Amino acid sequence: MRKIHVIGIGAGDPDQLTLQAVRAMRDTDVFFVLGKGEVKDDLVRLRRDMLETHVPEGTYRVVEARDPERDRAAEGAAYSPAVEDWRLARAGIYERLIAGELGEDESGAFLVWGDPSLYDSTLGILEEVLGRGTVAFEYDVVPGISSVSSLAARHRTGLNRVARPVQITTGRRLAEGFPEGVEDVVVMLDAHQTFRRYADEDLDIYWGAYLGTPDEILDSGPIAEAGPRIERLRAQARERKGWIMDTYLLRRRPRP
Amino acid sequence: MRKIHVIGIGAGDPDQLTLQAVRAMRDTDVFFVLGKGEVKDDLVRLRRDMLETHVPEGTYRVVEARDPERDRAAEGAAYSPAVEDWRLARAGIYERLIAGELGEDESGAFLVWGDPSLYDSTLGILEEVLGRGTVAFEYDVVPGISSVSSLAARHRTGLNRVARPVQITTGRRLAEGFPEGVEDVVVMLDAHQTFRRYADEDLDIYWGAYLGTPDEILDSGPIAEAGPRIERLRAQARERKGWIMDTYLLRRRPRP
Repeated sequence: MRKIHVIGIGAGDPDQLTLQAVRAMRDTDVFFVLGKGEVKDDLVRLRRDMLETHVPEGTYRVVEARDPERDRAAEGAAYSPAVEDWRLARAGIYERLIAGELGEDESGAFLVWGDPSLYDSTLGILEEVLGRGTVAFEYDVVPGISSVSSLAARHRTGLNRVARPVQITTGRRLAEGFPEGVEDVVVMLDAHQTFRRYADEDLDIYWGAYLGTPDEILDSGPIAEAGPRIERLRAQARERKGWIMDTYLLRRRPRP
Repeated sequence: MRKIHVIGIGAGDPDQLTLQAVRAMRDTDVFFVLGKGEVKDDLVRLRRDMLETHVPEGTYRVVEARDPERDRAAEGAAYSPAVEDWRLARAGIYERLIAGELGEDESGAFLVWGDPSLYDSTLGILEEVLGRGTVAFEYDVVPGISSVSSLAARHRTGLNRVARPVQITTGRRLAEGFPEGVEDVVVMLDAHQTFRRYADEDLDIYWGAYLGTPDEILDSGPIAEAGPRIERLRAQARERKGWIMDTYLLRRRPRP
């Protein structure tokens, strides 16, 4: 039976790999690497470096494929269908990779940035492939350090306050309003600096980009002051590197 | 200047240590271990095993202290003051440990289960100690695999659904009502199996206890069926081991 490891590899710092992740990597015959095109070649290189550091040469193969393009312009009612189209296209690629590149008794692996349980499509896509019934395999999941944990560690802060909840959400959701019933909100996948909408509120922001990598940038403070600073930092970094991955925590200040 | 590492060591599986955590452990002269008394000796032993496995003998000292007792009977309005008393008592212990057991040029470490950013008091207590101004130190934080990530990995599920938020909360909060605006809720620190209140709702539960350890127990399913099963499993396990650490995800089923 084919086996697949879905391995969380941390948020960018190669030392965020767990011993369990290294073990799973050493148990892998074929690594599937889906690239996002030129702009994120850094990320593909980081993964290759991890393999070279931790897995003996000659014990594995790397199979690269091109990630399907996603219609990122799709907004509103068109958003979910665009994501769904992309998921199905990706499932087709995974299906072909697993059936065509992985021998019956071999182990394959997908290396996932951060933690496979947070805003990552790999698990859903593997279930979709299994559901099609064209190729059989078992899979397991190795948890990873998420960018959320990484952000909190670098700012040396908790995600929640004592006995309080924390919500993890997307920029798109935050644009619809500040979540109900929580005062600590982590925002991921925000291409539009949605925090700007809340510049007049009593919030602190803890922001980080390229967490754990040599390009890491951190900033924090009351949103009225830190917000404009982060906007500038973000624009400059994006210009310089051609892409950006960032996340932030919004924390409502206690009322006096 | 004294240095302190706050090191997330994962949810129970020693292989969940990151390379960064191992590195920080090897950079440590004095490990501070706060025990909770007999019932959780397993946990103290697990930490000692990690040290023996990863840090050369003779390069470090272990200083044990007894965690202050917390008034766990305090409910309602008495809850926050009880937690605050406990935090202050703990800060006093940390202050004495750091001032008395750590040399001026030495590095100390606190090993934290899971991830120091989630429902852990260590960072807040260190800030409290610094604020008292009696002993100076620098500190950094090494993120760890949380029980939340571990739970999701073992159930091979995401925490959020596509483009949806997830909330992490406590049993105490869940008792006040199902959180607004979210359909995926992770519950920690629930001594009262608060999920029972939602047995009539269209929810699936993904539950795990002693995650990552040889005692790990997992169960999942529609809450009406899995809930009573989990109640029994939980009671039996608690009886057998004398303590339990568990967490779960509640997921509202999509409306047809």
